Amino acid sequence: MDFSSFLTSLGTSFVIFFILMCLFTWLSRKPGNNGVYYPNRILKGLDPYEGLSRSRNPFSWIREAMSSTEEDVISMSGVDSAVYFVFLSTVLGIFVLAGLVLLPVLLPVAATDKGVKADNTTISNGTFNDLDSLSMGHVEEKSPRLWAFVIATYWVSVVAYCLLWKAYKHVSDLRATALMSPEVRGEQFAVLVRDIPPSEGQTRKEQVDSFFKTIYPETFYRSMVVTNNKEVNKLYEELDGYKKKLARAEAIYAGSKTTGIPEGMRPTNRTGFLGLIGSKVDSIEYYNEKINELNPKLEAEQKVTLREKQTASALVFFTNRVTAASAVQSLHARMVDTWTVMDSPEPRQIIWPNLPKNFYDRQIRQYVVYVIVFLTIVFFMIPIGFISAFTTLENLKKLLPFLKAVINQNVIRTLLEAYLPQLALIIFLTLLPKFLLFLSKAEGIPSESHAIRAASGKYFYFTVLNVFIGVTVGGTLFSTFKTIEKNPNSIVPLLASSLPANATFFLTYVALKFFVGYGLELSRLVPLIIFHLKRKCLCKTEAEVKEAWAPGDLGYGTRVPGDMLIVTIVFCYSVIAPIIIPFGVAYFGLGWLVLRNQVLKVYVPAYESYGRMWPHMHTRILASLLLFQVTMFGYFGVKEFYYAPVLIPLPILSLIFAFICRNKFYRFFQSTALEVACQELKEIPNMELVFRSFIPPSLSAEKADDDEQFEDAMSHQVSRTASSV
Amino acid sequence: MDFSSFLTSLGTSFVIFFILMCLFTWLSRKPGNNGVYYPNRILKGLDPYEGLSRSRNPFSWIREAMSSTEEDVISMSGVDSAVYFVFLSTVLGIFVLAGLVLLPVLLPVAATDKGVKADNTTISNGTFNDLDSLSMGHVEEKSPRLWAFVIATYWVSVVAYCLLWKAYKHVSDLRATALMSPEVRGEQFAVLVRDIPPSEGQTRKEQVDSFFKTIYPETFYRSMVVTNNKEVNKLYEELDGYKKKLARAEAIYAGSKTTGIPEGMRPTNRTGFLGLIGSKVDSIEYYNEKINELNPKLEAEQKVTLREKQTASALVFFTNRVTAASAVQSLHARMVDTWTVMDSPEPRQIIWPNLPKNFYDRQIRQYVVYVIVFLTIVFFMIPIGFISAFTTLENLKKLLPFLKAVINQNVIRTLLEAYLPQLALIIFLTLLPKFLLFLSKAEGIPSESHAIRAASGKYFYFTVLNVFIGVTVGGTLFSTFKTIEKNPNSIVPLLASSLPANATFFLTYVALKFFVGYGLELSRLVPLIIFHLKRKCLCKTEAEVKEAWAPGDLGYGTRVPGDMLIVTIVFCYSVIAPIIIPFGVAYFGLGWLVLRNQVLKVYVPAYESYGRMWPHMHTRILASLLLFQVTMFGYFGVKEFYYAPVLIPLPILSLIFAFICRNKFYRFFQSTALEVACQELKEIPNMELVFRSFIPPSLSAEKADDDEQFEDAMSHQVSRTASSV
Repeated sequence: MDFSSFLTSLGTSFVIFFILMCLFTWLSRKPGNNGVYYPNRILKGLDPYEGLSRSRNPFSWIREAMSSTEEDVISMSGVDSAVYFVFLSTVLGIFVLAGLVLLPVLLPVAATDKGVKADNTTISNGTFNDLDSLSMGHVEEKSPRLWAFVIATYWVSVVAYCLLWKAYKHVSDLRATALMSPEVRGEQFAVLVRDIPPSEGQTRKEQVDSFFKTIYPETFYRSMVVTNNKEVNKLYEELDGYKKKLARAEAIYAGSKTTGIPEGMRPTNRTGFLGLIGSKVDSIEYYNEKINELNPKLEAEQKVTLREKQTASALVFFTNRVTAASAVQSLHARMVDTWTVMDSPEPRQIIWPNLPKNFYDRQIRQYVVYVIVFLTIVFFMIPIGFISAFTTLENLKKLLPFLKAVINQNVIRTLLEAYLPQLALIIFLTLLPKFLLFLSKAEGIPSESHAIRAASGKYFYFTVLNVFIGVTVGGTLFSTFKTIEKNPNSIVPLLASSLPANATFFLTYVALKFFVGYGLELSRLVPLIIFHLKRKCLCKTEAEVKEAWAPGDLGYGTRVPGDMLIVTIVFCYSVIAPIIIPFGVAYFGLGWLVLRNQVLKVYVPAYESYGRMWPHMHTRILASLLLFQVTMFGYFGVKEFYYAPVLIPLPILSLIFAFICRNKFYRFFQSTALEVACQELKEIPNMELVFRSFIPPSLSAEKADDDEQFEDAMSHQVSRTASSV
Repeated sequence: MDFSSFLTSLGTSFVIFFILMCLFTWLSRKPGNNGVYYPNRILKGLDPYEGLSRSRNPFSWIREAMSSTEEDVISMSGVDSAVYFVFLSTVLGIFVLAGLVLLPVLLPVAATDKGVKADNTTISNGTFNDLDSLSMGHVEEKSPRLWAFVIATYWVSVVAYCLLWKAYKHVSDLRATALMSPEVRGEQFAVLVRDIPPSEGQTRKEQVDSFFKTIYPETFYRSMVVTNNKEVNKLYEELDGYKKKLARAEAIYAGSKTTGIPEGMRPTNRTGFLGLIGSKVDSIEYYNEKINELNPKLEAEQKVTLREKQTASALVFFTNRVTAASAVQSLHARMVDTWTVMDSPEPRQIIWPNLPKNFYDRQIRQYVVYVIVFLTIVFFMIPIGFISAFTTLENLKKLLPFLKAVINQNVIRTLLEAYLPQLALIIFLTLLPKFLLFLSKAEGIPSESHAIRAASGKYFYFTVLNVFIGVTVGGTLFSTFKTIEKNPNSIVPLLASSLPANATFFLTYVALKFFVGYGLELSRLVPLIIFHLKRKCLCKTEAEVKEAWAPGDLGYGTRVPGDMLIVTIVFCYSVIAPIIIPFGVAYFGLGWLVLRNQVLKVYVPAYESYGRMWPHMHTRILASLLLFQVTMFGYFGVKEFYYAPVLIPLPILSLIFAFICRNKFYRFFQSTALEVACQELKEIPNMELVFRSFIPPSLSAEKADDDEQFEDAMSHQVSRTASSV
């Protein structure tokens, strides 16, 4: 790719972005699209436009995003979103500060050097162009000008340390403020107890109650033994499905009355497989019948579940936040593998089936998952290669003879031959985040947010190793494989020497990602089309329409690793080809603006983890920085710069910095500090409400007064504190 | 050493042991020696002989030791001693069970093989003798008989796992029982707070009080800010010295009255350096004067200390054990480097000067100490070599010319030349444990017992690396140094192939250690002689006599590493030369008996750590086992046994076993489990007494009622709980 084609691609991307932005301005004004562009505001009960300008100015959303404060974000979307913006603005800050020094200094230093024209050591596969003269590759070997690049490496690192430190402090404050909030939040009063040892002569409930009553005589409120809800969930979902179908059938019936026939047309359906076969029945009657049939079944199953399907885990409620916070951090039984007490997640993010998994099960699962992930990351090309080989046209013809006619056509043949391997790769890459999330849940993690953090970590290492290092070293690796075998240390110089050749590729990649990616994000074209299709063809009831525009959350599991890949790319090229810095700034600046808009108006958080994502982001930014420092060291070696060892302190400094941050800040992100938990509440918590909020929907009775049915699995103690207050 | 000289040395050792035992029987009957042989009983207020037989039977102490129970040990000497016996009996059990199988199986297998006579690969420096034909070295290479040795290796490992698991459980029970005791123990109500952040406008006391009152409104009792006691301790010791001297002078005066002169002879002393120069004064008057002079000074200094020398650490007292136990395990402040809350040690074992050391100080000190210890272990021969070289006779003559006359005499010259290097080594080895203890205290560890554990760990690695591996590989190492440099993996086969050659050396070492070592231990000849010398020449007052027979404690810091060395030796030879197992059994059997006697009658524990030593012992036994397994693998390699890889699972198994034990048991040894702490007390604790027991003696006022003087550093709150009871 030469310079002009680079500019062309950049221009095209920008045009696409501009078109998408205009589309957004136009589409978001239409009230019919409110569900797509303002779902968060609607669900919060706000008027979509209240306080927002309705002008036709395509940049008004930018002004709104800029003027919103961190408090707005927290109140609209929670601490996790605010922490994500701290991440974006920290990285943005690092790149801006780095660019302010590196661009005016390094570009002239590189450009005015005589340059290494034809005899340059870096393989420039057609990338040798005007851009290259602005990069470190243009500086002669052993040139004293390389000192400027050494200093630049230090500058980038120091800037990163300072801003990361500030950010960690700030996030810690955000977390503390949220946890200190005088609002009553159920999860702050509950703890999760796992690995309850078997006991004779006592029910689980008695066992849990007596254990915790002895230790916390003043503050113990009540316990809820976790039950195996598989059966009851199935019944509940079935019932729920019929209820939805009934509502739909009634809506159709009501609709038919208004359109033509005054007495209406009662909808019918078939009772067999997928409503395609079987006898035809009146839908409303049929569903009513089914619901009446299932209701007593569900109630009976609920009773059985509560009485007989109790597992070795429980939720325990305390009347006070300090006790809950300190219980989580204390060893309760002498043997660590019994009575494990953990932070309770919010009710909505509890992964119920994972709760009864026992200590050793969890440990073993964790290691097995680590091994699987390691193998996936390192050898992921093997299954894909296998699939590609398997799906060659010749094989396909043999296996699926009916395709022969299609395949023999020349155009299709060429297309398929060109895209089949990529197709396998794309399908794999699409499924990977889901696979990693599945693996993380299989570890036995009790909360959704934790599983997403774990999956996002795995995905980060996958992208950095395979996309970044893979693309960079890629071609050269196999040809020089024997060199590496002889001397494994040569991987760093190899990576370093392949970097400049790929600068243009990554420049284009980053530009594409921010223009097209954020353009699509902002305009929400795909959700818009899906919403309108659904509303037209499928939705009959209000609930169904609401479901059709349900916005989902930010999707940290894939979004953060994606951003991290950009961070890694920009860090690693920042000194070698400083021209990448503006692109990084644009990516994170634009990202900040677009996502600010989306967070305030569109996305609805699926959970609140009070910023627990931050330590993961912090560690990964540092990992990228470390990779950058090591590659720079290698690249200075390639440049035969005798003073390259002056860079050795940098990786050590990074490790020390990571160690100090971990020591100083991390424990507060694992568990709540007592000085935070001991803040006054604005009201005496209604423990009954807190307790009820944790009952899974499939078990919660419709009426509030049939309390006695929970007595089997859920204990109740008239709290002394509550009664004495 | 051939077989007969081995027997001779064994016989001699046994004779020495028998003589020492008879001496003990004879000496311990004399009432004048009670202070040496029964100090623990005397200090506990028991009659030395009550319940013990007074027969002249030299074996009666054995019967007494055998019949004593674990409860006796705990009541006489605390949980730590009982845990030490669990260690002894566990190791004894492992060796007995190993011996029961290995001796009858392996000895015939080895002895009936044709044997590798002159052409054996192991270098037998004159050790090739009758013993060798009973060892694995006698079995031919590649012989299928080696299978017996493989199975033996597995047997030893499995026995070790089973007994260690049982022991860990038992020790955990002991610890739990002790911690659950209904007795009020001060340290269970207190926590140690370090790294208190600086604050404006508040005194330390107010700051600590308000912080903990907010978090624990119900159970907070009082706090005691730690002060810098350097000055006041100096004054206190000076005063104490004068008091002792006064008592001594008065005793001399009283004594002189009874002997000759009826009006007595008032003792005099000189006021100058060491009582040798200066003017002569009347001792009683002089000391009285000094005491009267120092008393107000001390009181003034106490006030100044309490008011102005407060440090950033404090002891906080709670009215209940659960709160204290859970506070230790909870994060109190958001930043980990402030408000660190730790287990409070017993008052007698607090290392006061270490308390104010701050978080980063402690961390850095720890790493620095680790580096120093590592260097000491690895390069300890270098300073000794340097000293040896420096102290050659020629150098001595040059430096200290006045020694010339002495050195020129032939006998002395030969002696010095022979012993000077060894002398340096012996002095170094004597000082090493003290040096390691000093280093451990320099880490900033707050309690004596923890420092001793840390020092004992360091000493263990030193002995195993230098004595065991050093002696074994020693000679051969330097000649084959180049092989190792080329291929570092060859260290294991090298160690393995040098093992058999040194079997006899270690057999003798173990025998010497248990016969002479335990003989001396039992007879207490050295303390006896020192006691009598002191009593004759120095002691004038009762207090001085009591000080002269003060027995000290077991000295875990050096005793445990010493035992561990034997464990390592016996493990490593158990399969190669099974004849060592009886020696190991004798060492630990005899040790159990002798120390049971010493613990019940002699040693007085200096502290109680509730069995925290155990995890360290456990880890080190496993480390020895691992070393054994790895060496065995290497030795089978030397024997060119093709199936040697069947041993590979063993080290992995050991690591998994260590990991599981650590996971299951260890946390309870770090902090108290709440189910243990929540046991009922037999009385409502007198918190005032608990509080007072923590006041260092140099600060404690003589009178009980002048409480107000502590108010500056020590807060007081009328506890709600106490007042409402």
